[in-house]
Amino acid sequence: MKALTIGSRRAAVKDVPLPNVAEGFALIRMIASGICSTDLQLLAGYYNFKGIPGHEFVGIVEGPPSSKWKGKRVVGEINLACRQCAMCRKGLGRHCFNRTVLGIVNHPGSHAEFLTLPEENLREVPAEISDQEAVFVEPLAAACEILEQVPVGLGTKAAVLGPGKLGRLIVQVLKDAGAEVATLGRKDRADPQAFDLVVEATGVPEGITRAIELVRPRGTIVWKSTFHGPVKFDSAPLVVNEITVVGSRCGRFERALDLLRRRRVEVASLLAKEFPLAEGVKALKTAAKPGMLKVVLRP
Amino acid sequence: MKALTIGSRRAAVKDVPLPNVAEGFALIRMIASGICSTDLQLLAGYYNFKGIPGHEFVGIVEGPPSSKWKGKRVVGEINLACRQCAMCRKGLGRHCFNRTVLGIVNHPGSHAEFLTLPEENLREVPAEISDQEAVFVEPLAAACEILEQVPVGLGTKAAVLGPGKLGRLIVQVLKDAGAEVATLGRKDRADPQAFDLVVEATGVPEGITRAIELVRPRGTIVWKSTFHGPVKFDSAPLVVNEITVVGSRCGRFERALDLLRRRRVEVASLLAKEFPLAEGVKALKTAAKPGMLKVVLRP
Repeated sequence: MKALTIGSRRAAVKDVPLPNVAEGFALIRMIASGICSTDLQLLAGYYNFKGIPGHEFVGIVEGPPSSKWKGKRVVGEINLACRQCAMCRKGLGRHCFNRTVLGIVNHPGSHAEFLTLPEENLREVPAEISDQEAVFVEPLAAACEILEQVPVGLGTKAAVLGPGKLGRLIVQVLKDAGAEVATLGRKDRADPQAFDLVVEATGVPEGITRAIELVRPRGTIVWKSTFHGPVKFDSAPLVVNEITVVGSRCGRFERALDLLRRRRVEVASLLAKEFPLAEGVKALKTAAKPGMLKVVLRP
Repeated sequence: MKALTIGSRRAAVKDVPLPNVAEGFALIRMIASGICSTDLQLLAGYYNFKGIPGHEFVGIVEGPPSSKWKGKRVVGEINLACRQCAMCRKGLGRHCFNRTVLGIVNHPGSHAEFLTLPEENLREVPAEISDQEAVFVEPLAAACEILEQVPVGLGTKAAVLGPGKLGRLIVQVLKDAGAEVATLGRKDRADPQAFDLVVEATGVPEGITRAIELVRPRGTIVWKSTFHGPVKFDSAPLVVNEITVVGSRCGRFERALDLLRRRRVEVASLLAKEFPLAEGVKALKTAAKPGMLKVVLRP
């Protein structure tokens, strides 16, 4: 099958063998696969990644023949849990100590004609949600994760730093939960210490310093950005102002599917461009342009 | 009166005028005043401090003559709130936007024969608590603050990084709350990702990196250390493991006084040495020695 691969900081489209389908896994034919900023970080050396990236997809289950999922249109949770470790036993499979992660850690991703996932990771896509919209379920779930971690409601004064793809989803999710939300790019002004909640989604190390400036004493920062390399900042105001910083990664798919089905979140305008998988390298380059919205691969 | 002063990174004992006693304030004769690591940071340039440091004290109220506090033995909360700003209106006077702070920000401290504080900041010291013990009320309150910020109880697996003065108070407070607590110095080994709660009280920038290594996914780090200069660390594990970091500073005095009165916390063994105020410079030097416990000034 055709697949976009990354190795030694270079990308290429190659012919690779079809994946083996282990017991309990489904074989999924990719319909569409979104390029995430994490894919670009992997290309830059994050996790010393080698293999097929891609973890935002919608597809059709092709097998095994006996599967009750066969023929269904699905999205899939990206963490493959061992179901044995201390985290799994606490019901925190997304934090499994032995996990692999679709297209990120030791499990081939969705920028390919086919991928595999455990059946327990699959979620059926309701008919009301288009293929283009379904590609956004994974990042939208990551945006929804914030609501499971910190209190957000009517009257919450929030700022989202980083008006990119993830930032725009987060803004919609917070507004839907009742918050008053300011979206702040690098050059947008705002009063210091004015926000109950600041979501750092800039994708750059400097974002945390600005978040600390903007959040009120005893307020909360949700830290979404991951990148290759260290951060450097003055931590004294964080301690003195008793700020809470919450790392935030993946979320449950159910809430994201529900928001899309009920038309509470609009994602079509976040789609920038589609490329055939054969043009995957060009697609990655396009996705890396500053300010670029979602770039999607089609088989 | 005699006072220990800091200016331009130098300390000296000087004769200075008695402080003015404003409306609503009490004049307090110092009985004992503890040297905190923060005093040493002030000497090193933190906050560009100039003036009289000292914020851990016990004293006798001397005036004004009409005060209901006159003759009482007191300790005092160190934040002087404006009672007008958005924080004060939320009941967060310790985070008042316009606050001064005893011996730290624009209010002369307790390393002097006399000091002043608003009467509302005073707490009477019960007879069961000695002068030596009362000096520890302020840092013990800072240790107790953790219990108001994060859930701690039976079965909480906690590590305290930094077996210094504050660290030893925190260990006792967490144990009293039911936690199983490991005290870890720089060279002590521990399993990675093994603790629900890690309290960072090392006083050095490297502490946060170790805290991130030791805390379990979805666990909590309480960050106590303040210092002059930036931190530098890899933030990706904090985000990926969805760790919560809570800045933690001062606490309410009531809980600390109660713990001391009921003998739930032992502080006498933390007292290293007493100096007369006239030898304040020598006392600061002694307090700065590695591993030194509490050094206390007496008038």
